[in-house]
Amino acid sequence: MVRAALVGGILANLLLALGTAFLLGGLRHHDQHFNPAAARAYSTMMFLALVSLAVPSAFSRYFAPEGTIRQEQLLNIGIAGLLLLAYGLYLFFSLRTHPGAFASVEGEGEAHHEGKRWGLPRAVGSLLGASVAAAWMSEILVGAAEGTGKALGMSDVFIGIVFLAVVSRAAASGSAIAMARKNKVALAVGISLGSCIQIALFIAPVLVFSSYLIAPQTLDLAFGRAEIGSLFIAVLIGALVCGDGQANWFRGVQLIAVYAIIALMFYLMPELTHK
Amino acid sequence: MVRAALVGGILANLLLALGTAFLLGGLRHHDQHFNPAAARAYSTMMFLALVSLAVPSAFSRYFAPEGTIRQEQLLNIGIAGLLLLAYGLYLFFSLRTHPGAFASVEGEGEAHHEGKRWGLPRAVGSLLGASVAAAWMSEILVGAAEGTGKALGMSDVFIGIVFLAVVSRAAASGSAIAMARKNKVALAVGISLGSCIQIALFIAPVLVFSSYLIAPQTLDLAFGRAEIGSLFIAVLIGALVCGDGQANWFRGVQLIAVYAIIALMFYLMPELTHK
Amino acid sequence: MVRAALVGGILANLLLALGTAFLLGGLRHHDQHFNPAAARAYSTMMFLALVSLAVPSAFSRYFAPEGTIRQEQLLNIGIAGLLLLAYGLYLFFSLRTHPGAFASVEGEGEAHHEGKRWGLPRAVGSLLGASVAAAWMSEILVGAAEGTGKALGMSDVFIGIVFLAVVSRAAASGSAIAMARKNKVALAVGISLGSCIQIALFIAPVLVFSSYLIAPQTLDLAFGRAEIGSLFIAVLIGALVCGDGQANWFRGVQLIAVYAIIALMFYLMPELTHK
Repeated sequence: MVRAALVGGILANLLLALGTAFLLGGLRHHDQHFNPAAARAYSTMMFLALVSLAVPSAFSRYFAPEGTIRQEQLLNIGIAGLLLLAYGLYLFFSLRTHPGAFASVEGEGEAHHEGKRWGLPRAVGSLLGASVAAAWMSEILVGAAEGTGKALGMSDVFIGIVFLAVVSRAAASGSAIAMARKNKVALAVGISLGSCIQIALFIAPVLVFSSYLIAPQTLDLAFGRAEIGSLFIAVLIGALVCGDGQANWFRGVQLIAVYAIIALMFYLMPELTHK
Repeated sequence: MVRAALVGGILANLLLALGTAFLLGGLRHHDQHFNPAAARAYSTMMFLALVSLAVPSAFSRYFAPEGTIRQEQLLNIGIAGLLLLAYGLYLFFSLRTHPGAFASVEGEGEAHHEGKRWGLPRAVGSLLGASVAAAWMSEILVGAAEGTGKALGMSDVFIGIVFLAVVSRAAASGSAIAMARKNKVALAVGISLGSCIQIALFIAPVLVFSSYLIAPQTLDLAFGRAEIGSLFIAVLIGALVCGDGQANWFRGVQLIAVYAIIALMFYLMPELTHK
Repeated sequence: MVRAALVGGILANLLLALGTAFLLGGLRHHDQHFNPAAARAYSTMMFLALVSLAVPSAFSRYFAPEGTIRQEQLLNIGIAGLLLLAYGLYLFFSLRTHPGAFASVEGEGEAHHEGKRWGLPRAVGSLLGASVAAAWMSEILVGAAEGTGKALGMSDVFIGIVFLAVVSRAAASGSAIAMARKNKVALAVGISLGSCIQIALFIAPVLVFSSYLIAPQTLDLAFGRAEIGSLFIAVLIGALVCGDGQANWFRGVQLIAVYAIIALMFYLMPELTHK
């Protein structure tokens, strides 16, 4: 359930929120432009995150059939450590050494990412606060959603990946869409992709570490084929669509169509075989 | 056989026709340029098409082992509907709201895609006509090719994917190559990739719908590993090669080399294990 | 062991050497620029190489279960021939018809690839010499590394892919890193990616051919899932990172992080299941 919520959060941000932002922004403003270098930096970070989820998943499926639990745990802890290190360096990179790399193209001089105006301590502090709040909200949401979803006959994975993600991301997505409509598409891209990166490179490894410290059972980054496949598809199409710094309504449609195909798959996927 | 012809048509257009066009055009004109935004739009559409074929294929292989025929059919119909909707919006996008997005770079002001000069009704009409003609020609070709191929000891899948595709696409490929030699490489890219998109996003879903309405047995979008893998390879290398709007003879060689590797694989693949 | 060394050489050049070069160069020079067209040409060649390794591997795993050795050998020989042909055309392309395509952006007019100043005969001659020397050095290194690695409790595949690659590539990597520190990042990219291409498109097919002529047992291009998966990840992230011709220290960190994840996986992968 936690794994499904992680994947769902990334898919919802990357495909649904960004797609809707492009669609509605493009309908009002025809063509919109953002900084292709920033989009490329986000894409590469997303790809790094994808690799860090795909490697332990493949490891657990193909290479660890018989009693190699210890190796699997070492792999998970090692990768979680690497991700946190990479995330720390990413903050340092985007806040200190290359703040300009994420500056918007329009040149109106305003920061396109809230984090930009902040110093490093405030950014780190707000990150920690946001994570605690997110964890607490998740707890509540998971409980509520599970009841509602079960009543509607949805499977656990579908609830986690599609339903829960849409509900819990409504706030963030709303702001991304509003920014796109105000022709600040760079800000919309920053919010959507920044959330994905935060989920994959910060929340996921923190959950892994805390599961080893306090949780009754450990959380491993071992996702099923369908989850990894969907993430892979989402990251690749995100890189293709955002790679040249242009947005229009049809690109939004393409992202939403991919999201719809993936959601349909998870809705129809039989419960028992989601491994 | 129908599935193999669909995949073969896409591979032949994307790799063989475009590769030959780049090769011959590059030999005569050294460097050629086309609109990178248009190439990126085509790549994204191709990727959307790939996802829409890969998802039901993976679903049918991994997640639907025991008696979930109904879910599989729902998935196929749902995706076919989504594809037709996306194709309709793509026509609307390229003909109405952003005709400039596909304009050629050379700036001689002529449309690089026949469809461009037409209005929406004529485009839709010609699409329907072309599809009927294609279906009828396919019928004849499949019969003729099957006999010839069998006599030469080829497997069914090889006939469908390589032999049939080359024969039936000769006309379209010929025009693409002729355009590239006349230094209208943007037009060659438009014809090649446009055909791929038409096959994947229009002909494939129409065949699925019509198979549910009139055919003796339903056609599902459940391709084998080799077909999806080849398509994936073709779409990725197409995106890499076309992504910056430049063409030269060596890029043509790269596309043709990938096609040769794939064709060799299908030729040698044992008949019985093509699932 | 030979297969592992091939994969390891590519991974070490593409991720570790290039990542370190970007990291150290970026720390000293902030932002560095190189020719994006050259990077794209390298990426496409790497992708072609990846396809040529992935196709026989998938063939051997999925489609050749029962007694189809002859088909598999034909596929390997056919692909090796295609690769050598593609490599020859690549030399012709980069040395004769489009030397400018690989020229560096800085415009100081010096060739960024040693091969550039040479004529075709000298390039071919030095290639042959380098291959013989590489084969001989490999022989010695494999022996030495096997002993050392075994003593340290490493698995065969880990020795081949990570340990051996790092040791044997130290010289080439060193020169790439030195170039990047001297702000000749285009030269660093050329050395790193050029080595990868040489390994995949020249050394690998030569080894296949010579194994059929002189070796006691034939060498097939049938890699395991982990090897192909790692190569695929490396080629994709290489294309993403290098695609726009810019380098900074954080891109180096991303490449090194991916390398660390892959190395960790191979270190922990149980010996017996590396197929």
